[in-house]
Amino acid sequence: MTKDALKVSIVQHSCSDDVEANQEQIITGIEQAAAQGAKLIVLPELHNTFYFCQTEDTNNFDLAETIPGPSTKQLGALAYDLEIVIVSSLFEKRAAGLYHNTVVVFDVDGDIAGTYRKMHIPDDPGFYEKFYFTPGDLGFTPIETSIGKLGVLICWDQWFPEAARLMALAGAELLLYPTAIGWDPNDNKTEQARQKEAWITVQRAHAITNGLPVVVANRCGFEEDPSGHTKGIEFWGNSFVCGPQGEILSESKRHPTIFTTEISMRRTESVRRIWPFLRDRRTDSYYDLIRQYID
Amino acid sequence: MTKDALKVSIVQHSCSDDVEANQEQIITGIEQAAAQGAKLIVLPELHNTFYFCQTEDTNNFDLAETIPGPSTKQLGALAYDLEIVIVSSLFEKRAAGLYHNTVVVFDVDGDIAGTYRKMHIPDDPGFYEKFYFTPGDLGFTPIETSIGKLGVLICWDQWFPEAARLMALAGAELLLYPTAIGWDPNDNKTEQARQKEAWITVQRAHAITNGLPVVVANRCGFEEDPSGHTKGIEFWGNSFVCGPQGEILSESKRHPTIFTTEISMRRTESVRRIWPFLRDRRTDSYYDLIRQYID
Repeated sequence: MTKDALKVSIVQHSCSDDVEANQEQIITGIEQAAAQGAKLIVLPELHNTFYFCQTEDTNNFDLAETIPGPSTKQLGALAYDLEIVIVSSLFEKRAAGLYHNTVVVFDVDGDIAGTYRKMHIPDDPGFYEKFYFTPGDLGFTPIETSIGKLGVLICWDQWFPEAARLMALAGAELLLYPTAIGWDPNDNKTEQARQKEAWITVQRAHAITNGLPVVVANRCGFEEDPSGHTKGIEFWGNSFVCGPQGEILSESKRHPTIFTTEISMRRTESVRRIWPFLRDRRTDSYYDLIRQYID
Repeated sequence: MTKDALKVSIVQHSCSDDVEANQEQIITGIEQAAAQGAKLIVLPELHNTFYFCQTEDTNNFDLAETIPGPSTKQLGALAYDLEIVIVSSLFEKRAAGLYHNTVVVFDVDGDIAGTYRKMHIPDDPGFYEKFYFTPGDLGFTPIETSIGKLGVLICWDQWFPEAARLMALAGAELLLYPTAIGWDPNDNKTEQARQKEAWITVQRAHAITNGLPVVVANRCGFEEDPSGHTKGIEFWGNSFVCGPQGEILSESKRHPTIFTTEISMRRTESVRRIWPFLRDRRTDSYYDLIRQYID
């Protein structure tokens, strides 16, 4: 990491069931972000498709694609042309009957710098991800790029301090969370506000406890439940960037937007000097963290 | 845990170098809190003394006391008389040359329900705790009381998600943080605001990631540096209580205060049903958390 200032763009968008239209809007978004001077562009979780996990339908496996494959070819070419690093999120078909929720990072040379397979898989009404995604088997390994070591995690991972910590311990210089989170329209406004605030708070805390900047890209817009069983999901947007003390540097609202934020990559060093949490971890007493419960 | 509603009081106070005066104000505070209907009373870190860790002075070991000892006798009697649970924080003399920063919890019968010795010890200019306190050797074990299992941690512990998680995994129903944190008057207002906000955020995140209510008791007031080397510490108060989604239930400002908050002890069950983080932890992939760094 030689440069201090890093310009990162988040492309926050809504998705339809028209994959080509989604891809077109992503390409346009990336081009706009590059025009804003971004060197790193982060897309929301599963940006090519509607959020198909609202129902359990075997036909939806048709939406998956191999890595490498058509999407990675297209995005890699874009990274090369625009000389940017792209963090994309794809529905990976690894083998027949074996699928993952996978981030692919492209470096400025257009090559795949690395992949991360979502480790923590949620499952609750309207978010039936355990049906679709095999939990990741690549561990918590930062992806080395020309702009630094990226600790990429995905959505549900954001609620687990273990994930952020392991990325930090492995040398991540930045934590990134492509996300697809929204409200159940059945919840009242108070509950909805609590949920969004908790989601922001917990990710700011990863920044604080690890002394790292955090970038969160969420999708936005309403998507109906194809089965008609629920009232659908209102994806709340609110993508944001915070610094290593958890200080908000930028955040969006609920509408599609492309916004660029300058992050200091050197502030981690000074913040960790005043808050040397890594110095004081009681590694001799953390063994039980590998247990499901202590009973 | 049979009852749902638990009234918890925080006695936020400032400390002088007059130990007896500090103890008197604590007793008065506890009595007032009990009169407000509190069943659980939480005191700030090292409430009997000024914050002696501003300098490294062997004479300050005279401030330490045995457990059990005079303070535990006095506080135990108070817990019995008022039929309350008290969370106190003492400078423990365990043996000649062996001292800890220790929480003692008294149950309604006046007995010591359990102790916790601060596991993570800070050390930075004005907070020379590594000089005074041997890191705790009791691990992260909740203390069983008549009102529930209390996950008591102390100050610097609050920055470590590992500590909160281990308490939750061991069955804690409530996380408690006696604290002594403040500003360096040399820092500008922006930095001071960032620090306080980070401190609140990180503890709310422990509530969220573990689905537990959190109670934080901080001291307040200015204490000068006896050595005259620094400008002293402005303890920022701002004790607070939040629920298991990190929602703030109450918080104080910078001045001495005694305030009582009703906590729902059953909300953890419902919050963990919608946010089942404990279900999805990747314990197969957390082993490296016991490493200092992964290099």
